[in-house]
Amino acid sequence: MAKADADSAKPLFDKIALIGIGLIGSSLSLAIRRRGLAGMISGAARSKETQDTSLRLGLVDAIESDPAAAAKGADLVILCSPVGTFGAIAKAIGPALDAGAIVTDVGSVKTAVIDDVAPHLPDGVHFIPGHPIAGSEVSGPEAGFAELFDDRWCILTPDAKTDADALSKLVHFWEQCGARVDVMDAKHHDLVLAVTSHIPHLIAYNIVGTASDLETVTESEVVKYSAGGFRDFTRIAASDPTMWRDVFLNNKDAVLEVLGRFSEDLAALQRAIRWGDGEMLFDLFSRTRDIRRNIIDAGQETPVPDFGRRGPKSPEE
Amino acid sequence: MAKADADSAKPLFDKIALIGIGLIGSSLSLAIRRRGLAGMISGAARSKETQDTSLRLGLVDAIESDPAAAAKGADLVILCSPVGTFGAIAKAIGPALDAGAIVTDVGSVKTAVIDDVAPHLPDGVHFIPGHPIAGSEVSGPEAGFAELFDDRWCILTPDAKTDADALSKLVHFWEQCGARVDVMDAKHHDLVLAVTSHIPHLIAYNIVGTASDLETVTESEVVKYSAGGFRDFTRIAASDPTMWRDVFLNNKDAVLEVLGRFSEDLAALQRAIRWGDGEMLFDLFSRTRDIRRNIIDAGQETPVPDFGRRGPKSPEE
Repeated sequence: MAKADADSAKPLFDKIALIGIGLIGSSLSLAIRRRGLAGMISGAARSKETQDTSLRLGLVDAIESDPAAAAKGADLVILCSPVGTFGAIAKAIGPALDAGAIVTDVGSVKTAVIDDVAPHLPDGVHFIPGHPIAGSEVSGPEAGFAELFDDRWCILTPDAKTDADALSKLVHFWEQCGARVDVMDAKHHDLVLAVTSHIPHLIAYNIVGTASDLETVTESEVVKYSAGGFRDFTRIAASDPTMWRDVFLNNKDAVLEVLGRFSEDLAALQRAIRWGDGEMLFDLFSRTRDIRRNIIDAGQETPVPDFGRRGPKSPEE
Repeated sequence: MAKADADSAKPLFDKIALIGIGLIGSSLSLAIRRRGLAGMISGAARSKETQDTSLRLGLVDAIESDPAAAAKGADLVILCSPVGTFGAIAKAIGPALDAGAIVTDVGSVKTAVIDDVAPHLPDGVHFIPGHPIAGSEVSGPEAGFAELFDDRWCILTPDAKTDADALSKLVHFWEQCGARVDVMDAKHHDLVLAVTSHIPHLIAYNIVGTASDLETVTESEVVKYSAGGFRDFTRIAASDPTMWRDVFLNNKDAVLEVLGRFSEDLAALQRAIRWGDGEMLFDLFSRTRDIRRNIIDAGQETPVPDFGRRGPKSPEE
């Protein structure tokens, strides 16, 4: 497949427009260039700094501040900005889109995005929401790299009316970017991601907030002794605040549902500690080991142990 | 200092007894040998397998199943088994100890350990509780390595009656093992560690448990999409169940106090999500970024970003 594409004179898309050039937008650009998936890449960024950086790094062939100008004539438009901006962007680009163009996004929530975007797109434009499960705590156009999506999952959430050819082309696009593609219902996506991503971020933000606010333990003590476990939470609690504010505002129902379960389970653990129920604690602590093994087996984590992240068996440095 | 020690004919201790040879015991052995801190190392382990492994790897010069036999004649005894075993071990070794011997431990809680151990030790034996803040999710005698304690903090919790020379010698021992040493009150230790270690572990165990129990999201979905953040929690939720059961049973008061604060803060976040208070979310998500920077600056974390733990900028594999 890769060879056939390389030999082919015609790229998969004539013009791909990236609306928003942060970690995901810049990585997409590099993944697109790696396989020659676009005749040209146009980008839209609000800040002059991001515009300049995008041109300097060769992430785009043309950069615009107006999303509509970037999207004009594109046969693939990818929304890569925080999900809170999608409604206004869709409204702006709608009139500029050609019939047959595919519009997708990389947002972490899907039902709210569909509500915000779909009404603004003209008939004949194929809107297929998407979400690559890849990223890090680092933001901005200089953080991107071509391999970000390799072996990661990308979820697409078409509906019953989605054009089969357009869907097939978008699946192929993501596969060429290195990802494995799953298709599911938007509502189910939002629930799954509430569990695997949104609640973990919320909890991480919360414990870091609680620790900073304690009167009886200083922040300098928290920092010094963070290797005891706290440190693991600070990575995702350093994620982009705007992006995550928008995620929680736009996936309220699923987040509150899973959070209710989390709090209920935590209350049961609290009770077990208060009453000294060692058996209940041991049972939970034993079965949570298995899921990590499964994650490692599935290639979504490395088995390299974390000895303070500096030991000889953890070659990070 | 290191040179003087190397030149000196006499090691810091004549005989060091390691009671329990898991990750910490085996790493201590290797750290002791690295600097020649002991004339000989004796070990005690309950299982035949651990006994054989300890001898095969040269972690000990002699191995016993009876802690008293291992501790006999030692001038430093280090309890390295789960804290729930310390009371019985102290009772067993008490009669075998010589006056002047130092007894310490590596347990994650300190007031409960003092209550369990101190009453069994004879007059003239110096009991100085300790806790090296280092470890990983991997257990057992084969997991150890000499550098585990390098640049990590070790907390000692002597009381007003502790012999100054014995304390000074133990501080020197840990420094020679690579650690930086802090001295604090046992009760404060337990509160600090509840924040930086115990509650993070409890929350990680809990979210992994909640995720496995959901009827609406399969475990295979949780595994596939774990790169969205969930994965970060599974590392510490794979820690040794016996050790962690004992931690929670033995640090009840501090854990419940911090857990109360965590739950209160989480309820406020829950309310902010329900009512769409984006400003409150953004404020929290912004200030939690700073603490990670401080942890990296303090050398307790690497700044290498985590791009799915497989990217070219995260050279773990």
